[in-house]
Amino acid sequence: MHFLNEATLDGVTERSFVLDNVPGILWTPAGDHERRPLVLLGHGGGQHKKAPAMTGRARRMTALGFAAVALDAPGHGDRRDPSADVTGLRRPTPDEFAQANADRAKSAVPEWRATLDALRDHGHGLEKIGFVGVAMGASIGIPLAAEEPRITAAVFGLAPPHPSLTEAAKRITIPIKYLMQWDDELIPRESSLALFDAFASTEKTLHANPGSHAAVPSHERDSDDHFLQRHLA
Amino acid sequence: MHFLNEATLDGVTERSFVLDNVPGILWTPAGDHERRPLVLLGHGGGQHKKAPAMTGRARRMTALGFAAVALDAPGHGDRRDPSADVTGLRRPTPDEFAQANADRAKSAVPEWRATLDALRDHGHGLEKIGFVGVAMGASIGIPLAAEEPRITAAVFGLAPPHPSLTEAAKRITIPIKYLMQWDDELIPRESSLALFDAFASTEKTLHANPGSHAAVPSHERDSDDHFLQRHLA
Repeated sequence: MHFLNEATLDGVTERSFVLDNVPGILWTPAGDHERRPLVLLGHGGGQHKKAPAMTGRARRMTALGFAAVALDAPGHGDRRDPSADVTGLRRPTPDEFAQANADRAKSAVPEWRATLDALRDHGHGLEKIGFVGVAMGASIGIPLAAEEPRITAAVFGLAPPHPSLTEAAKRITIPIKYLMQWDDELIPRESSLALFDAFASTEKTLHANPGSHAAVPSHERDSDDHFLQRHLA
Repeated sequence: MHFLNEATLDGVTERSFVLDNVPGILWTPAGDHERRPLVLLGHGGGQHKKAPAMTGRARRMTALGFAAVALDAPGHGDRRDPSADVTGLRRPTPDEFAQANADRAKSAVPEWRATLDALRDHGHGLEKIGFVGVAMGASIGIPLAAEEPRITAAVFGLAPPHPSLTEAAKRITIPIKYLMQWDDELIPRESSLALFDAFASTEKTLHANPGSHAAVPSHERDSDDHFLQRHLA
């Protein structure tokens, strides 16, 4: 893990790093090297490690006293293949998108696990570890949480349905918050209810709100914070 | 409305009253006669206005700076008919219980509305008004919220299914939090999802947790408080 540069703004220290060609960002409360809970942030499809949803979430995590880390997912951010960016290409169908996410997860899961090892060697991630990711973030986070026992609580949601997710959910026993949009134009309602049902966790909570895929209400971010505080602090 | 007696304990003033033979309790932060939001507390079947779930909730409401009020529902608490208390009688079926709740609501809705009128004449309920009630509390609260425009936000849940509830929900447009238990032995999962779907509210949020009818996790009470603060404070 090579740390590239470090900047501190408004009480948050942001460090960029590269590990085996995977670029990432580590956020911590400024000037503080205490051991603290660590939250892994999985970005959505087409997004990247420094998208506004990621930096906003990282700021909330440091305000809770947590460290946060994001990686560019395969094919995203600094890992995007410019030659693949052909405008005019048709959008993938939901099934193609779910399959592409499942394929990405096969690379992304070991990348996240290697990141946890490397951060541990730098003194991070020795306390409780959580994961937050919806849509593609959940497509990667659910198989990750099934494999990685260091993750002890997770916020997932809006995952495009894929058989591999149901199988992974059945192996997950940690506390889960699952977010769904009641009128999601991309994810069938029944598939979200079935995925929530599949988690083996005895402590899991489903939150559903009206509106489209992208219309998750802002009060859910407060609720995510309460969930993470309850399980990681 | 006749106030019978008043006691103050741990910063909460509790006043018992009777209105047209319906007994109730009003809780307010102690020694304070400010106008403040008012939350109506609907108790569950077999419970009453001073059951621990009611007094505990009332204490949470006053801690938020709200007033709270509870009534004995028809046939409950001080309104119980001792001659009807025949031990050894078979338990009602879920359908009979839902029908009994629908019948009770026909009396309870006008009783709650008269209570709001009377409290207003005493200076309460001039700010925003909310309702909290699950199980039988929701069987009464849902038709009440459909009729009573002074109620502007409500927490419902665990309602035994009845056609009158679905019809009432379709007329409700205020923000709603709806609680369901994923493994409820009394309420079919599909009926709770269908009732949530029926609310006409553009802002509504469904929370589902594993476990039986009575096993609502305590973190939902914190979440109820956040919901009420968001909409009434």
